[in-house]
Amino acid sequence: MTMTPQPSGAIPDRSIYERRESGVRSYARSMPRQFGKAAGVWMHDNRGGRYLDFLSGCSTLNYGHNHPILKQALLDYIGGDGIAHGLDLHTDAKAAFLETYEALILKPRGLDYRAMFTGPTGTNAVEAAIKLARKVTGREMVVAFTNGFHGMTLGALACTGNAAKRGGAGVPLSHVSHEPYDGYHGPEVDTADLLAQRLADPSSGLDAPAAILVETVQGEGGLNTASPEWLRRIAALAKAHGALLIVDDIQAGCGRTGSFFSFEGMGFTPDIVTQAKSLSGMGLPFALTLFRPEFDQWSPGEHNGTFRGNNHAFVTATAALRHFWSDGAFTADIARRGDLLAARLDAMAAEHGFETRGRGMMRGINVGSGELADAVTAACFDAGLIIETSGAHGEVIKILAPLIIDDALLAGGLDILETSLREAMADDFAVAAE
Amino acid sequence: MTMTPQPSGAIPDRSIYERRESGVRSYARSMPRQFGKAAGVWMHDNRGGRYLDFLSGCSTLNYGHNHPILKQALLDYIGGDGIAHGLDLHTDAKAAFLETYEALILKPRGLDYRAMFTGPTGTNAVEAAIKLARKVTGREMVVAFTNGFHGMTLGALACTGNAAKRGGAGVPLSHVSHEPYDGYHGPEVDTADLLAQRLADPSSGLDAPAAILVETVQGEGGLNTASPEWLRRIAALAKAHGALLIVDDIQAGCGRTGSFFSFEGMGFTPDIVTQAKSLSGMGLPFALTLFRPEFDQWSPGEHNGTFRGNNHAFVTATAALRHFWSDGAFTADIARRGDLLAARLDAMAAEHGFETRGRGMMRGINVGSGELADAVTAACFDAGLIIETSGAHGEVIKILAPLIIDDALLAGGLDILETSLREAMADDFAVAAE
Amino acid sequence: MTMTPQPSGAIPDRSIYERRESGVRSYARSMPRQFGKAAGVWMHDNRGGRYLDFLSGCSTLNYGHNHPILKQALLDYIGGDGIAHGLDLHTDAKAAFLETYEALILKPRGLDYRAMFTGPTGTNAVEAAIKLARKVTGREMVVAFTNGFHGMTLGALACTGNAAKRGGAGVPLSHVSHEPYDGYHGPEVDTADLLAQRLADPSSGLDAPAAILVETVQGEGGLNTASPEWLRRIAALAKAHGALLIVDDIQAGCGRTGSFFSFEGMGFTPDIVTQAKSLSGMGLPFALTLFRPEFDQWSPGEHNGTFRGNNHAFVTATAALRHFWSDGAFTADIARRGDLLAARLDAMAAEHGFETRGRGMMRGINVGSGELADAVTAACFDAGLIIETSGAHGEVIKILAPLIIDDALLAGGLDILETSLREAMADDFAVAAE
Amino acid sequence: MTMTPQPSGAIPDRSIYERRESGVRSYARSMPRQFGKAAGVWMHDNRGGRYLDFLSGCSTLNYGHNHPILKQALLDYIGGDGIAHGLDLHTDAKAAFLETYEALILKPRGLDYRAMFTGPTGTNAVEAAIKLARKVTGREMVVAFTNGFHGMTLGALACTGNAAKRGGAGVPLSHVSHEPYDGYHGPEVDTADLLAQRLADPSSGLDAPAAILVETVQGEGGLNTASPEWLRRIAALAKAHGALLIVDDIQAGCGRTGSFFSFEGMGFTPDIVTQAKSLSGMGLPFALTLFRPEFDQWSPGEHNGTFRGNNHAFVTATAALRHFWSDGAFTADIARRGDLLAARLDAMAAEHGFETRGRGMMRGINVGSGELADAVTAACFDAGLIIETSGAHGEVIKILAPLIIDDALLAGGLDILETSLREAMADDFAVAAE
Repeated sequence: MTMTPQPSGAIPDRSIYERRESGVRSYARSMPRQFGKAAGVWMHDNRGGRYLDFLSGCSTLNYGHNHPILKQALLDYIGGDGIAHGLDLHTDAKAAFLETYEALILKPRGLDYRAMFTGPTGTNAVEAAIKLARKVTGREMVVAFTNGFHGMTLGALACTGNAAKRGGAGVPLSHVSHEPYDGYHGPEVDTADLLAQRLADPSSGLDAPAAILVETVQGEGGLNTASPEWLRRIAALAKAHGALLIVDDIQAGCGRTGSFFSFEGMGFTPDIVTQAKSLSGMGLPFALTLFRPEFDQWSPGEHNGTFRGNNHAFVTATAALRHFWSDGAFTADIARRGDLLAARLDAMAAEHGFETRGRGMMRGINVGSGELADAVTAACFDAGLIIETSGAHGEVIKILAPLIIDDALLAGGLDILETSLREAMADDFAVAAE
Repeated sequence: MTMTPQPSGAIPDRSIYERRESGVRSYARSMPRQFGKAAGVWMHDNRGGRYLDFLSGCSTLNYGHNHPILKQALLDYIGGDGIAHGLDLHTDAKAAFLETYEALILKPRGLDYRAMFTGPTGTNAVEAAIKLARKVTGREMVVAFTNGFHGMTLGALACTGNAAKRGGAGVPLSHVSHEPYDGYHGPEVDTADLLAQRLADPSSGLDAPAAILVETVQGEGGLNTASPEWLRRIAALAKAHGALLIVDDIQAGCGRTGSFFSFEGMGFTPDIVTQAKSLSGMGLPFALTLFRPEFDQWSPGEHNGTFRGNNHAFVTATAALRHFWSDGAFTADIARRGDLLAARLDAMAAEHGFETRGRGMMRGINVGSGELADAVTAACFDAGLIIETSGAHGEVIKILAPLIIDDALLAGGLDILETSLREAMADDFAVAAE
Repeated sequence: MTMTPQPSGAIPDRSIYERRESGVRSYARSMPRQFGKAAGVWMHDNRGGRYLDFLSGCSTLNYGHNHPILKQALLDYIGGDGIAHGLDLHTDAKAAFLETYEALILKPRGLDYRAMFTGPTGTNAVEAAIKLARKVTGREMVVAFTNGFHGMTLGALACTGNAAKRGGAGVPLSHVSHEPYDGYHGPEVDTADLLAQRLADPSSGLDAPAAILVETVQGEGGLNTASPEWLRRIAALAKAHGALLIVDDIQAGCGRTGSFFSFEGMGFTPDIVTQAKSLSGMGLPFALTLFRPEFDQWSPGEHNGTFRGNNHAFVTATAALRHFWSDGAFTADIARRGDLLAARLDAMAAEHGFETRGRGMMRGINVGSGELADAVTAACFDAGLIIETSGAHGEVIKILAPLIIDDALLAGGLDILETSLREAMADDFAVAAE
Repeated sequence: MTMTPQPSGAIPDRSIYERRESGVRSYARSMPRQFGKAAGVWMHDNRGGRYLDFLSGCSTLNYGHNHPILKQALLDYIGGDGIAHGLDLHTDAKAAFLETYEALILKPRGLDYRAMFTGPTGTNAVEAAIKLARKVTGREMVVAFTNGFHGMTLGALACTGNAAKRGGAGVPLSHVSHEPYDGYHGPEVDTADLLAQRLADPSSGLDAPAAILVETVQGEGGLNTASPEWLRRIAALAKAHGALLIVDDIQAGCGRTGSFFSFEGMGFTPDIVTQAKSLSGMGLPFALTLFRPEFDQWSPGEHNGTFRGNNHAFVTATAALRHFWSDGAFTADIARRGDLLAARLDAMAAEHGFETRGRGMMRGINVGSGELADAVTAACFDAGLIIETSGAHGEVIKILAPLIIDDALLAGGLDILETSLREAMADDFAVAAE
């Protein structure tokens, strides 16, 4: 494997960004290059550098960049003057997507959901989900969890745990109670029991919830994973207390944890599911809120958005479903790669006394401090590997490689991580020894 | 002009929508066709029908469908493996957009703004705008206006006037005061005076606002227009009371009212501007929040979103800016067509005793009742014209033709409207006479 | 009339207040004396000073201080070990109050209300009123008015207009819309029309209200008075839109405007009425929320409070009702004194080009600036007259003399005011001429 | 001991209550008598019945009804035309109270607090406390606890746990997070640890709090007691995270748990303390918010209320402080009676397999069901003992006897309870055996 990253330092001319782009930009700070082309697992900067992508647009590019089959489908569609924008009108592209989704995703899994195309961002899908749960139940409170991340518009942000993100609201965030996630208080405390007690107690101060909103793996929150047992308890609590169970599968879905939905085979069925990120397959803006037909109680247009139902995304999403989800080959690949990833991370963690997190191809190492994690990922970047951190303090190095990555390239990227981690630890030791 | 709409009635097989798409869908109900291709001003259904588009995706397709120059730029980009998704990383496509926007839009107009690429929907741009205003001022209240429409996520929805949309929230919408828009209380009452009095009075109950959020023409609210004098008063009030002035230019911008920004030449400069809809030029999801550099007080990542900075949209937006906004030709075209449109609508209104609304190529007729407006637009659709309504009761027939429409086609579409309106009035008269 | 005020300056030893009483105290600042006894219209300080009371505890002492009949009733009750505190148990004192209130207040006026004894402060009565309206209607929004004052606990404070008071909340105050009061926008603008338009418009942004909460005269807000016509419009709007009409009669009731309720004879009947201040007659904490029987939809204990149903107050209130409200004599006295007051204030206003405000024995002069008003009331205090200001800027000198004041004493107090005002104006002129 | 309760059944004529008093009344339902006189530990109905009071106005009458020394002080004051109502003016009565409170309460305990007289109800004192904490810290969130009870106005109600009370708000209750109280999750879970973790975690979703609001014993919530260790942890957490510690001592204070403040001797000092209920000593409305001088950051009048500073209550409170708190005799009496009470309750609990709760003279038995508790208290009432329940399900029989009760009378009342409980258990057994 050869990577040719540019030497570190600023790109030759970034003055347009300084002059005209808001300081809110973030990834461009730790990866100060200007990128141009990208294909498969590789990103290319404008000075000949090439980088292996272990970030995948935060799990938006599970099938890699510009996958040739998806790309061709889109080129054909655009070239043939396929409708790009049609509000929520029926289109050939939408019909094909719905039929494919029904045939390849819903029916094989015995799921009966209606699809709502919200504005094409994850936060819009979450807003729609909690609106619907509130409408269906006539209640206002939503139970979300510590370290959950659900988006940045006010309704979804209220469900998000991160204090810096929450603080950006500029108004108090209400109508949400953040309860401890699985394992939050350590192995001795069963947080499902804590929630069960509070929900059952009319004087707990926790109002009867409209919904319980949960991620099966917390992508932004530090790759914390919930056990199937815990999730079944949460599902049962929702049902017992008249709340809808919403699984936010935006980051963990579309194969990232091994199956199309991250909750498959766990013995419960969510009432509402949100999807976005890798759903279009090619990184195009696209979001979807699924719900049981009996909860499809919207009035026409009660929730809308100009870009709902992105037709380009319908085309690439349909192509992706057909290519990757028609049989079990892709799932087998993810399982194999996930095991490879797990074994390598476990070894690194064991070497340094750290712990690993996550499942499937959504894993990381908790190195205990954001400073150390930043040092490691910076060294990786210098070596040509794009990789990021996660968690409340950015203390978890997060590997979100494209799911289609060749096993050898996966191993090659992990070599870089291993080396960078080892060197950072040595530096740390050196500093500590002074 | 020849249109070949399909006969009215359901499309042959819509069962996939009934089975799998949420009942929240709306436009598909009044236009029950399945569309496939679209080019310029024309949309084509899957049975050979062709329709003239006077809706333009609610002003998202100001340059028409699949404009050949934009289309080619996008095909070239995709074909060359241009990065589709890069979070907020620097990309060649983003740099080109920023440079073009600076050169063709900001500099010629003497504007100094920073650009923030929010999640690619209008509502996300509005959420960012009000977050920023709250952060900058340390205040919470936002002044919005009667009949304003700003989006469907909770922060933007609180600024939206429509009761049915608001009711979908399922929680009370707070921290916003809806003040009367220009002309709301009739010609005798200067609503800027009313607002001035309330802002100046420490016992009015109107808390000191973080922002005043206004559309210069209310696209969804019934094509109400604010006069330059009134807008200058509002701008001055914002300044005097330490609030930021936000112009939501999502529907009225990008040439719809005649100039790139709807507020050009009015003698005031907003502190924050939101754009979306036609900004990408080809209907791709894209949104932008502009603000004065001194208000660029975001922390890195304080507001983010997976699909912020849609690279495909950067490409088409850049092509659109270069093609349409390099000289004054397009503006002159819009002015001429707007006059043509105004003259025809005035004549129709005079014939039936109605009143017209709007400015530029964003105009309509208030026919006094949603039922009548629906009857007229349904008849138009049967004759091959896609056209919609607006206003609190859907009582305003709204013409949002592509700005690039040939003058003769514009006239032809208006002929259909004229005839449909005349016949609906005759029916009404017949009913009334019974 | 002889008053013997103490010379201005601090009382000999106020160190206990400096050491131990919070800086939130306010009246003690403009009236730096320590008071001991009080009887009728007179207050006495601890150094032999005597002051005529034109404040009456902000209309809490309409029958003067320690009225002998009320005082004797209370002494007898306490001396006989009458229950002082009984939560909401039935007591002889409560039964007597309810029977007297029914016989002397409700029946003669054709009113059918249920009585709820809330915690014994006005703000608690308002909280109960808006809770009940929200419960009955299932709605959340309350319409209140500019310059309204309804209390300081969070629910009532949200209905209060004053920015300084609102700011004390430390959280945003929600679920209330402040609409312009009668005459707020000058004589040309009918504010009932404005409200009617907003309530009828589904896109006005004003959510359907649970209640409209109004004072007939705004005691704290500057003695603004609503006309009977305007109040009838408001009552009709409430009814038409399914909202309950709440009259907050805490300051204006109990005879202050001439009749027991301030809305008598105006041609409408509130759904809910709040009372407090002078209801006990002797200044004891007491509050009452009245509502139509069909709205008595509380569950037992759904709203409660330790001191609800203050038995000492039942005793004095019953005595006051029997003594003052058994026949029309008291009403005639108030009318005569109110006319005297009006005539004198009109003359003062005319002399200086000011305007008068209020009705009955609840009147004032708007002198245009809080500084001037403060200078006048300070001079009055030095001359032995206790008098205060009102309004958004404290610009209204407010006369709230005991209703039982002897006509000559009323005239004597007004002489002091007239002189003080004249001198302050001369000083002002002198300053201006420098 | 002889009690002469009236036979069960309705009082002869309760029609005035049915006609005119709101259905919100609660205690009058379980104790359907009309009371007239009361002295010491006895209440008398209007038909000759006499009842031993084990409720004491929910701890408002710690010194019994109409204590002769307090009564005489009040009679003297009223007889001498002492000012009853003076807003927040300085009065002889207020000065005497402040001086006595400083000398007998603050100084001996080494406490340095400023006193704020709020509207004379507990809920108003709590509203003032949380307003002040929000003002001082500039934060909005308040941490309260499961089963906490703090009042019924919206600000205090948001801090209250009980769902039925909360539901009465009719609007969502915001800006408060209800965390588990000491022991809430059983002996294995240290809830201070849970809170510590959430406060330290920037992604827990728990916003930085303005205050932590806690009762040392939860009077309404079921007599749950917090250990000194736990309270010290909470105090330390507040300090570490920049929040103010508010102890709501309204029910547990004034000697109920054995000392004047319920937190004495526990090794921490609250930043703010609220008092009401027994503070006046004679059941008169009175409330007090204490805070450290450095937090006395109110503007004059920023929080006010007509009946703040009830002069009658100043008089009786001063007399009570002097009589009961000048030396240690009263404290010794409470300790002895508390031990007697504890021993008897422990024996009852042991007999039936129940558990006891509380400390000092604030104790009860958790009988496991509200139905059983109601049956027991109803039987007690029939036998002449006034006693009530507490807890989320009303499952705790609560003994709040006057602190001045003669030991023999205390034993006599407990005999009634013991017998009633035994009989109810036998009935239960009989029912169960059928």
